[in-house]
Amino acid sequence: MKIMILGIDGYIGWALGLRLIANGHDVIGVDNFYTRKAVREVGSDSALPLPSMETRIKEAKKVFGKEIQFYNLDIKNFAKISELIKRYKPDAIVDFAEQRSAPYSMVDAEHAIYTMHNNIEGTINVLYAIKQFSPDTHLVKMGTMGEYGTPKFDIPESAFVNTSINGKEDLITVPKWGGSWYHWSKVHDTNDILFANKIWGITATDIMQGPVYGTRTKEIVNKKLFTRLDFDGVWGTVINRYCVEAILGMPLTPYGKGGQTRAFLSLEDSVESLKRLIENPPNKGEYRVVNQFTEIYTVMELANEVKAIAEKLGINAEIKPIENPRVEAEQHYYNPERNVLPKLGILKPSRTLPDEVYAILSDLKNYRKRLEKYRDVLMPKVKWRD
Amino acid sequence: MKIMILGIDGYIGWALGLRLIANGHDVIGVDNFYTRKAVREVGSDSALPLPSMETRIKEAKKVFGKEIQFYNLDIKNFAKISELIKRYKPDAIVDFAEQRSAPYSMVDAEHAIYTMHNNIEGTINVLYAIKQFSPDTHLVKMGTMGEYGTPKFDIPESAFVNTSINGKEDLITVPKWGGSWYHWSKVHDTNDILFANKIWGITATDIMQGPVYGTRTKEIVNKKLFTRLDFDGVWGTVINRYCVEAILGMPLTPYGKGGQTRAFLSLEDSVESLKRLIENPPNKGEYRVVNQFTEIYTVMELANEVKAIAEKLGINAEIKPIENPRVEAEQHYYNPERNVLPKLGILKPSRTLPDEVYAILSDLKNYRKRLEKYRDVLMPKVKWRD
Repeated sequence: MKIMILGIDGYIGWALGLRLIANGHDVIGVDNFYTRKAVREVGSDSALPLPSMETRIKEAKKVFGKEIQFYNLDIKNFAKISELIKRYKPDAIVDFAEQRSAPYSMVDAEHAIYTMHNNIEGTINVLYAIKQFSPDTHLVKMGTMGEYGTPKFDIPESAFVNTSINGKEDLITVPKWGGSWYHWSKVHDTNDILFANKIWGITATDIMQGPVYGTRTKEIVNKKLFTRLDFDGVWGTVINRYCVEAILGMPLTPYGKGGQTRAFLSLEDSVESLKRLIENPPNKGEYRVVNQFTEIYTVMELANEVKAIAEKLGINAEIKPIENPRVEAEQHYYNPERNVLPKLGILKPSRTLPDEVYAILSDLKNYRKRLEKYRDVLMPKVKWRD
Repeated sequence: MKIMILGIDGYIGWALGLRLIANGHDVIGVDNFYTRKAVREVGSDSALPLPSMETRIKEAKKVFGKEIQFYNLDIKNFAKISELIKRYKPDAIVDFAEQRSAPYSMVDAEHAIYTMHNNIEGTINVLYAIKQFSPDTHLVKMGTMGEYGTPKFDIPESAFVNTSINGKEDLITVPKWGGSWYHWSKVHDTNDILFANKIWGITATDIMQGPVYGTRTKEIVNKKLFTRLDFDGVWGTVINRYCVEAILGMPLTPYGKGGQTRAFLSLEDSVESLKRLIENPPNKGEYRVVNQFTEIYTVMELANEVKAIAEKLGINAEIKPIENPRVEAEQHYYNPERNVLPKLGILKPSRTLPDEVYAILSDLKNYRKRLEKYRDVLMPKVKWRD
């Protein structure tokens, strides 16, 4: 298949590019390198040294025998992105080209605006480009499990759900509650894609993905093929951040009570899920929601897991909860449905959490000196109520 | 009170400015005159000749003895709008400064993007400016009854509603379904304001208003005080458009079956409702939803009303439904709650629909020659599925 990846320089974007060429697909990659700049903006960098796109593409060709076509391009530019979509008419467009940090979106008005501007308008450009120039393209859009918030009902894996409101039944869009401007931008995206599906019949898979962890996939076999790994208070997600804290001999820092329950999956399982969703598209004109995760943990359970694995590597990590910078429930019900991926054979994690964490720590150990420089950027500085 | 009106050059913005100064309030007005340009862009203009802002402010001072402070400013400029809010610290900010046409938002990618860009980012700028520089300010934000779509349940007048999803009870945000990019931008605004209320305690009245009709309020006593009246296929709303069709001897043109049921109110009742909502703010830190309308009609019923009143003025108008350019239900349930405004004394229309339509037609009759130029812009050219 011919697959265009928007945001191919990102954590999952690059790993997916490798998975797809390794399986014989043609990949067209697009990125404007914004994340590289924005991570430097907060004084941080990828934990694993990140090769240039050129180096990575060359190495990927050497290892997998296929060359990724790359375009340095901002999807906010409708003329350019629609020209590219018109030229390639890909079977699928995977859209990761969004500002993906909740704390970054909460810094100030400018960062909130940037997030809305980039995410919402990028998505609308892609929707229009597909409609006008490549109506058979399957849009695979990366959203987040965070769009749902933490409701008291079981989170359905569908666009609509039956409900009863003051005694009257109706089919409504699955209720959402974003916990940051970033999360709301994703909720807005979901609404916009669903609307485009209804009026134009755009074929779409809208992925609600949990936080991803890990440094490796089957294809990331050497450091010239590394994907980025963020760990700082703005760009890092919880497991990856804990692992860097352990490596640096810092305490592991759950936010608040640590009862925040989330749905997780490894990088390996994320790219394999994406590959199967691309290879098995919904029917033409269908809008498919996928709750993409393999396991559910509280952030405190994860701290305990990382602590235990670190010990095996001779690292003594303590757990020290810190004040929660976010506005979120710290003890709550959480039960998302999971049907689509199991039907595609993604039944459980391909590796246990302890094994995966062991692999992350083993990779990070080699870069301890590099990480020392970034001690100051691990603690959250962006506070939701400030 | 000191009240800032964002979008004071608009249909309701100007009429509200007059109502407020006539009642002794201080008014600071802001506009970037975008609507004047955008209406010309589709080859149309206000049905009633629109004086310059300068002329209107001078005349308003002569008639009401108070001068409106005016700033030509784009609220997308955070530095400028926050400086102004910081300087005045108004008791209330009324935000009309949005792209307000559904068809305009559906023209193409550029117009969709402009709508999202202007509406969502303008609102976020205002939220941040209030939070940082004037936290006691009451935000009065203009939304639309169109945010709800046409659900099978009775539309609650609240932010949240109790529901049962697959057997589990929860409080969810009132379900929404936008019928255009414009409508979705307003839904996104509502989510964003509600989120700002929850994390920062912004005091807000979020108004879901039905389509407004009419040329006059108590204060619009001469043509130097006219507010704009749009009637074309892009910028006009249904009653005002029917009235211009009648004046031009054209058939009245409901879209499709004409069973689309909407909640309406006159310009006079809109500005009086707004005045009372401003003078009676919610508690500090409260988010108040108002379903702002006085009557409910189908668009076919309205065509019949306009036809009947036109006859009294010697105009023989026929009704000729045209193909619906939109994607919307043409026969549906519609029952919105209405509690807030009745408690503030807005119990029913201050004038009957026939009297109000008679007044519109009487005003428009004087501008028949002016309207002849715009015959070609009445029919809808923007089609939702195109």
